[in-house]
Amino acid sequence: MSARNGSQPPNVISAGLELFADAASEQGAQVRRIDWRPPMPSSEQALARVMADRRRVQANAEALARITSTAALLVDVLPAGPTLGLGTTDFLHAGPPIGWDRASGPLRGALLGAAAFEGIVDEPEQAIELFASRAGYSLDPCHHHSAVGPMAGVISASMWLFVVEDPSTGRRTYCSLNEGLGKVLRYGAYSPDVLSRLRWMSDVLGPLLQQAVRARGPIDLKAILAQMLQMGDEAHNRNRAGTLMWLREVLPALIDSAAPSSDVAEVVRFVSGNDHFFLNLAMPACKLTLDSARDIPGSTVVVAMARNGTDFGIQVAGTGQQWFTGPAQLVDGLFLGDYGPEDANPDIGDSAITETAGLGGFAMAAAPAIVRFVGGEVGDAINASRRMYEITVGEHPMYSIPVLGFRGTPTGIDVTKVVRTQILPQINTGMAGKQAGVGQVGAGLVTPPAEIFVQALTALAERAAPLL
Amino acid sequence: MSARNGSQPPNVISAGLELFADAASEQGAQVRRIDWRPPMPSSEQALARVMADRRRVQANAEALARITSTAALLVDVLPAGPTLGLGTTDFLHAGPPIGWDRASGPLRGALLGAAAFEGIVDEPEQAIELFASRAGYSLDPCHHHSAVGPMAGVISASMWLFVVEDPSTGRRTYCSLNEGLGKVLRYGAYSPDVLSRLRWMSDVLGPLLQQAVRARGPIDLKAILAQMLQMGDEAHNRNRAGTLMWLREVLPALIDSAAPSSDVAEVVRFVSGNDHFFLNLAMPACKLTLDSARDIPGSTVVVAMARNGTDFGIQVAGTGQQWFTGPAQLVDGLFLGDYGPEDANPDIGDSAITETAGLGGFAMAAAPAIVRFVGGEVGDAINASRRMYEITVGEHPMYSIPVLGFRGTPTGIDVTKVVRTQILPQINTGMAGKQAGVGQVGAGLVTPPAEIFVQALTALAERAAPLL
Repeated sequence: MSARNGSQPPNVISAGLELFADAASEQGAQVRRIDWRPPMPSSEQALARVMADRRRVQANAEALARITSTAALLVDVLPAGPTLGLGTTDFLHAGPPIGWDRASGPLRGALLGAAAFEGIVDEPEQAIELFASRAGYSLDPCHHHSAVGPMAGVISASMWLFVVEDPSTGRRTYCSLNEGLGKVLRYGAYSPDVLSRLRWMSDVLGPLLQQAVRARGPIDLKAILAQMLQMGDEAHNRNRAGTLMWLREVLPALIDSAAPSSDVAEVVRFVSGNDHFFLNLAMPACKLTLDSARDIPGSTVVVAMARNGTDFGIQVAGTGQQWFTGPAQLVDGLFLGDYGPEDANPDIGDSAITETAGLGGFAMAAAPAIVRFVGGEVGDAINASRRMYEITVGEHPMYSIPVLGFRGTPTGIDVTKVVRTQILPQINTGMAGKQAGVGQVGAGLVTPPAEIFVQALTALAERAAPLL
Repeated sequence: MSARNGSQPPNVISAGLELFADAASEQGAQVRRIDWRPPMPSSEQALARVMADRRRVQANAEALARITSTAALLVDVLPAGPTLGLGTTDFLHAGPPIGWDRASGPLRGALLGAAAFEGIVDEPEQAIELFASRAGYSLDPCHHHSAVGPMAGVISASMWLFVVEDPSTGRRTYCSLNEGLGKVLRYGAYSPDVLSRLRWMSDVLGPLLQQAVRARGPIDLKAILAQMLQMGDEAHNRNRAGTLMWLREVLPALIDSAAPSSDVAEVVRFVSGNDHFFLNLAMPACKLTLDSARDIPGSTVVVAMARNGTDFGIQVAGTGQQWFTGPAQLVDGLFLGDYGPEDANPDIGDSAITETAGLGGFAMAAAPAIVRFVGGEVGDAINASRRMYEITVGEHPMYSIPVLGFRGTPTGIDVTKVVRTQILPQINTGMAGKQAGVGQVGAGLVTPPAEIFVQALTALAERAAPLL
């Protein structure tokens, strides 16, 4: 409250104290209300310690510079086995580490399908015994192998991968090829048509895309991502323009290839008929740029958000390979056909790597039509992007949002800002059926569990530089 | 001013009277200002007569219903000569009728190029004598032959045309194939590379697209237009998503065709490398739907806006084939390279048929990134669309603008509303160099000359139904 003399009404600035503001206002004071909330519970001490870390500001600037400047070129398409060193019984999954015992329905369904696809069993459900036995196979997060996978994110040896490279370091990231929507392995479905589609993808799609990408030469995925934001895509649940722009890049080489024209036509039909195909290119591009910011001492920037359908995990630039995990949340959104909330599994997939890089939910203002897929109003989508500037360290110089006057996307989630504001990262996502075998049931909006940011903050505080 | 007693300050509603409103406000009155301007000069009597025409409301509702419900299917690709009955010396042009004597530089340039392309002369400039002689050739508006052409809009016998059909009536409209940007015939350029590109388009592109479209079957252009508005295109100066979505439709048939794969690859490269390719599909689709509203007695809805580089002309549902013309205006926008305002020809082309159908400038709110091509701020683009609701009879049920909460595009320009509000239709457009041979110099925003709407209103008043 400002100093005052005589009979002038007092001038009051109220930071989050609504009852006080109301009372002052009723008594004739001029009240300016500032939206403010206290930081997350039990976070004050760690927050003070991390905010005082003299390395923090510079470390976060370095993280943002690396994330935004790292190039991401599609350089090859390769089979997962030799590329990632996977044998027939080695499986990768989305999200932080988890075992079969705690695995969600869609992750179990995808693993059963992958086991049948690899020929370990004849029928997917015969593999339950193997997985439950805890022996004779390996199960590891994609993220531990420079890879990402949407939804269940299961990668097995016979699948093919996009290979994305940062030419300045030679670092590579990997992602499986997108199967389309509905009844597909990554949503936990494993029916015979799911497996036969996977076989065609390994027998025809992968090898043909390999030929085309090698003949075409490296494709700049960030240039496509930048264009997508001008064309109503946000690169998580809208990838329509991206898919078509990417196809345009490989088309002449595909057509010029020696492959039978019926195979070429089928590949073109498959890719162009799947508006989500580019998601599996956006994801490894985002991971490649974010991985460049790993292991920067003192940085509070999030470098991965990932879900396995049970746990939501984050990794932070200043805390190495440590995961901070809490329960994956239920998604609020739109359902397919007769499905309803009771059919949906909690949040799942590595695709939140797009939000971690400032795309997806963070760039929804560039993709207002997405509300027809994930629910809500256009104004909500625009406000979601605006809100994310409150919890990020900067704006992306290449990715801009036309309707916000070409402002750069909010980039580099800062753990301290999330804890201080209690604003959680906004993710949009597909919804898998919670029963293994069902497939997709909808799409919607979700946030991480708040407590994982306090965990991360605590770990950052433990590693903070000594006070001077 | 409302009735008042005692000492209460008066309540004033001011409709457009700013000086009065200021004076009343200064004297303590509560003033509510309503934006209002008098109708266009000399229009009052005709306006009263047309507004009183008892057929008007129903006729305009009928016009809107026809425009929005008429289907537009791409059914074929054909050579112009036999299709439109053009001989080697017959030429079509954009806009209302005009002769060589009053033709603008870019229209002259395109005619010279077309004469050489048809083999009437060896070098384009040798045709000046022919055209100046006023004999031995014909020159007619595209619009008089169910056709449209962007910019100079010149169509000659050897060019190929898209054929768009309304299946319920069998009516067809036509448009040439898009050459790309820069030094191209439609912008008035006629250098050897322009002519050799046209030859390739007639020898390879047209016949191959014919094969593919016939094999594929009819393509619903309105479905593509509806999607484009969700993907940052407004179908006049942004057709990126549209071009790729259209290519997706014909690709499998192109690849399956018996044509040499090098030709197929070249066609795919040409189409996918030209973000404006779909403009020449959007235009005949718009014309087809608008032509369905011609000849509705009493309707004040505009069914064509077209420019020949000298004159801007409109045609109206209630006044048959009559053109109302005035001087084409200069375009305000962005220039390529070293070009400036002194290099630009006034407004030219049939492409304002997109605005007439509620797309282009009317749908700019769906395409905020267009301001990087035509100039201005994103807010201007959104406000331009909002303003167009003031002068249109309704909203399109299929074409929606996400950022306006999926509101339908403003559709059906009403001559009476333009005259009453003095709000002119907002067009975005390419800019041709004013010298024949130059080609494109920029892109920007423009409006029609106001007086042509008063002319149209006067003609509507003369045809108004007798007062009861």
